[in-house]
Amino acid sequence: MNISPQSIQQAAERIAPYINNTPILTSSTLNQRFNNEIHFKCEGFQKTGSFKFRGAINTLLSLKEEGKLPEKVCAFSSGNHAQAIAYAAKLMGIKAHIFIPKGSSAIKVAATKAYGADVTICETRAEAEEIYKNSDDYFIHPFNDPHIIAGQGTACYAALHEGLQPDAIFATCGGGGWISGSYLAKELLCPNAKVYAGEPKNANDASISYRTGSIHHLAEQPNTIADGARTLAVGDITFEYLKKLDGFYEIDESKIIYWAQQLAHYLKIAVEPTSAVAMAACEQWMQENGNGHTLLVMLSGANVAPETYVKIWA
Amino acid sequence: MNISPQSIQQAAERIAPYINNTPILTSSTLNQRFNNEIHFKCEGFQKTGSFKFRGAINTLLSLKEEGKLPEKVCAFSSGNHAQAIAYAAKLMGIKAHIFIPKGSSAIKVAATKAYGADVTICETRAEAEEIYKNSDDYFIHPFNDPHIIAGQGTACYAALHEGLQPDAIFATCGGGGWISGSYLAKELLCPNAKVYAGEPKNANDASISYRTGSIHHLAEQPNTIADGARTLAVGDITFEYLKKLDGFYEIDESKIIYWAQQLAHYLKIAVEPTSAVAMAACEQWMQENGNGHTLLVMLSGANVAPETYVKIWA
Repeated sequence: MNISPQSIQQAAERIAPYINNTPILTSSTLNQRFNNEIHFKCEGFQKTGSFKFRGAINTLLSLKEEGKLPEKVCAFSSGNHAQAIAYAAKLMGIKAHIFIPKGSSAIKVAATKAYGADVTICETRAEAEEIYKNSDDYFIHPFNDPHIIAGQGTACYAALHEGLQPDAIFATCGGGGWISGSYLAKELLCPNAKVYAGEPKNANDASISYRTGSIHHLAEQPNTIADGARTLAVGDITFEYLKKLDGFYEIDESKIIYWAQQLAHYLKIAVEPTSAVAMAACEQWMQENGNGHTLLVMLSGANVAPETYVKIWA
Repeated sequence: MNISPQSIQQAAERIAPYINNTPILTSSTLNQRFNNEIHFKCEGFQKTGSFKFRGAINTLLSLKEEGKLPEKVCAFSSGNHAQAIAYAAKLMGIKAHIFIPKGSSAIKVAATKAYGADVTICETRAEAEEIYKNSDDYFIHPFNDPHIIAGQGTACYAALHEGLQPDAIFATCGGGGWISGSYLAKELLCPNAKVYAGEPKNANDASISYRTGSIHHLAEQPNTIADGARTLAVGDITFEYLKKLDGFYEIDESKIIYWAQQLAHYLKIAVEPTSAVAMAACEQWMQENGNGHTLLVMLSGANVAPETYVKIWA
């Protein structure tokens, strides 16, 4: 399925009244340390605390434009997609039913319920599928969906639309919606920019898929602190864009934790480990490519569970 | 010594080219929870990570205007004042010698050195005084100084100058420079606003001074996680403004930690425990004064040492 770069611009216009115009932050100390100019797009300040709201609201607004807005949507997610769908549904005046895997952070369950969604805790994804396939609820995939990808791309689009002309762009790869959208945005506004993905080494399905040219499936839930990148496999739609990237960096857990600490220290913001993966990729790129570049690091979100804070700072 | 409210406006104009225009953040979730409209002035995004840079640069620029800019300044501080003086001196092209008490956080010592200052680790304040009194260095007091107070007041001035008309303003009291400046700012731009101080119960010298009408000295270093409020006593200059406040709230350690967590969660920013004290005061005020108010909480800084993160999230 082909997604046009223009669909990112259309999504940006569509969702503009609903989203926060998130800041781009810099740190003079980090810039001096690396002799590069690093710009951080901070989606932690987005509604519901992550970029996921962009895709969620774009999907519902697009369905409404097409006359297909359902009465009830559903999603399977332990994290940011859950909260984003719950809040977007609330804004659109429809119901949301969120299936959350057992063992997920209590604070994320509470946040999803606080946005007004019905929540069902499931043992497995199959159990959730069994329920919603037998309902009339409209299922919203977390990444393998053109509306979702177009929405996620609006964050990078906004950064480039402000006039930033980076040599390279870095984003974390989970299912690939965030980086696919970022790739499409730069195709429209800054086609010479390179785009690189960071992925936890412990959850390197996308990196393997990129290297081998076919979608690799992890056998079991990977063990990484970057909870937004625990996806078992990318989708067929996102894989088409992942193939076009300029490279993948596989990141050690210790580096993820290091950059979660460092970014909190230098940028003074809450940083999810999933976001820190992108900066760790950027660091490796700078070690290979030297000084004097303008770089854009996409920070995906700021929903850090208390138990994750403990792990980061332990 | 009398400080005119106009001196805050003059300081704001003087330091404008040197400072960050820090954001005012809100949380719709917090506002719904308390049925009040709470605005957070986030000085963590100020140069060197706290409001202290405002006073530091105002002092040096004022001395320069008066033809008295020294070749070298010195300060005694373990924390934000140290970094602020070091960086302000660097910008002004003069030297800084910072005396830091033994046992201070390594990261704060490193940050002060990184701003180009000479650092001497001292066992006691008396030891530092002995050294700098026998030098030609110009000593900059962390709070009991009209230039410092005028500079600190520019943060509240900026918030009110944007058009905010709060019913009440909350700030943490350490030595009293931050809240004295905030009081003067509101006298100029929003004279009907009430001003309240929060202070750790474990370091309640200013609250006792406020109640008894004379400056109370703590016998020894208080034990509080809010390291910016460990001052043993307020100054004679700041005490004149503390007397005029509408009230003091003494905050338990558990409430300081609670609000350090909650503000990170809802605002997605790094929050010093010292800043959380002001929100804890605001919470108590809301419990006493009910709904429907516009409130301004001054968040002083975002320099959180790793060991403090561990304590907050343990």
